[in-house]
Amino acid sequence: MAVEIRVIYGDTDQMGVVYYGNYLRYFEAARAEFFRARGGSYLEFEKAGYKLPVVEALARYRKSALYDDLLLVKTSVDYIKGASLKFVYEVFRDGELLADGHTVHACINAEGKPVRFPDDARRLLSAGSGP
Amino acid sequence: MAVEIRVIYGDTDQMGVVYYGNYLRYFEAARAEFFRARGGSYLEFEKAGYKLPVVEALARYRKSALYDDLLLVKTSVDYIKGASLKFVYEVFRDGELLADGHTVHACINAEGKPVRFPDDARRLLSAGSGP
Amino acid sequence: MAVEIRVIYGDTDQMGVVYYGNYLRYFEAARAEFFRARGGSYLEFEKAGYKLPVVEALARYRKSALYDDLLLVKTSVDYIKGASLKFVYEVFRDGELLADGHTVHACINAEGKPVRFPDDARRLLSAGSGP
Amino acid sequence: MAVEIRVIYGDTDQMGVVYYGNYLRYFEAARAEFFRARGGSYLEFEKAGYKLPVVEALARYRKSALYDDLLLVKTSVDYIKGASLKFVYEVFRDGELLADGHTVHACINAEGKPVRFPDDARRLLSAGSGP
Repeated sequence: MAVEIRVIYGDTDQMGVVYYGNYLRYFEAARAEFFRARGGSYLEFEKAGYKLPVVEALARYRKSALYDDLLLVKTSVDYIKGASLKFVYEVFRDGELLADGHTVHACINAEGKPVRFPDDARRLLSAGSGP
Repeated sequence: MAVEIRVIYGDTDQMGVVYYGNYLRYFEAARAEFFRARGGSYLEFEKAGYKLPVVEALARYRKSALYDDLLLVKTSVDYIKGASLKFVYEVFRDGELLADGHTVHACINAEGKPVRFPDDARRLLSAGSGP
Repeated sequence: MAVEIRVIYGDTDQMGVVYYGNYLRYFEAARAEFFRARGGSYLEFEKAGYKLPVVEALARYRKSALYDDLLLVKTSVDYIKGASLKFVYEVFRDGELLADGHTVHACINAEGKPVRFPDDARRLLSAGSGP
Repeated sequence: MAVEIRVIYGDTDQMGVVYYGNYLRYFEAARAEFFRARGGSYLEFEKAGYKLPVVEALARYRKSALYDDLLLVKTSVDYIKGASLKFVYEVFRDGELLADGHTVHACINAEGKPVRFPDDARRLLSAGSGP
């Protein structure tokens, strides 16, 4: 799954490149589209009483993304284990890898307790290689 | 009331100055300190069942704020009328005015209905010229 | 001209709605697409030695934008006069107006001096109703 | 070295907690104060012709930071090796660890080439346990 993101001025910093913290926004946009591309949405997941707070995030910056770049952010599920889920990400510009990283999420219920992923979500997230 | 804000890289854009949208963050920091300086807090206000959504925001940019600048953001209440509240702001660096602006807020209750400001809040917000 | 924006978690705040400062990001995305829709780009404008710093920004918030909303942000040029340019904006969700506003920009040259808009830019920005 | 940060609405998301990407802003604020606490500044470092782009960032989220929290962000240098520098961070609220992480930076010169840290910077960054 991939999402296109156009870099705006508000994403850059005075080094003339995308601010390092903003890649975590791009990662988030990509995983939201991941849900949608498989016919679900993170919103539905929340409405069913679950949340996926981030417990770890890593980004590696290889080349700088610049103002007005059209980025392609790819994501896939690395694993689902019990109450834990890992997404991996790659950020490209014109086929060149600019950055990669991952996020690890806990599945928690409405009371904030970690719970095994509901079967629906598990099927949604682990289905084949996705659209 | 005034709050000091140190400009970070993440606040700037590739023009080498603070991104225009980030002044609204500075305004927010200033009005939170306004509540606190008068012995209250916006958090308490919310816990009492009220919210102050912004219905209008204006900023005028006169000189650029730069990375690592130590800004002084001053705010005061322009008026409280019925369910409406207006804050005005000025952003200074070393005594020089860089930007000013205002926000207008509605007072809404837990059901999202506009309501007259509770007397406690009215007293808190309108008391003298403040600390 | 209009641009679609999908609201991410990072755009929202704990009131469960888009943070008021982030509309200025949406406005910026819209005006960048405005240049592009007319066959130019703000980047080219900069490469020609000009910049368009914002001197005033206004936003009026009518209804809240929510997580995962697909927003349509429309913009057009209100006027170009001498070294001054005004964009107006409207933010819609499913045809409903959520917010509107404007930005006023100065045209400055590489030395930071206000200058009359170059003819190319003037033609680009004022051409008909645009694509 | 430690810096205090007051959480604003603009830092939170609709889960009612600080958005995960914003911790990288807090990390940046802490390392800027690290330079300053030792009598230098990142700005001077840049003016001397060097930059410290981030090549890797990691954050681990243990407990949520909330609106209006007064956070203490501690940082120290883990190592300086050749053209590489690693900062580690811990985010506390009332003595409780909420998050930790690190950033790895390259030292590059005005031409963007990785270079061994200048001796001044090396001394500044590695001096004792710091103020």
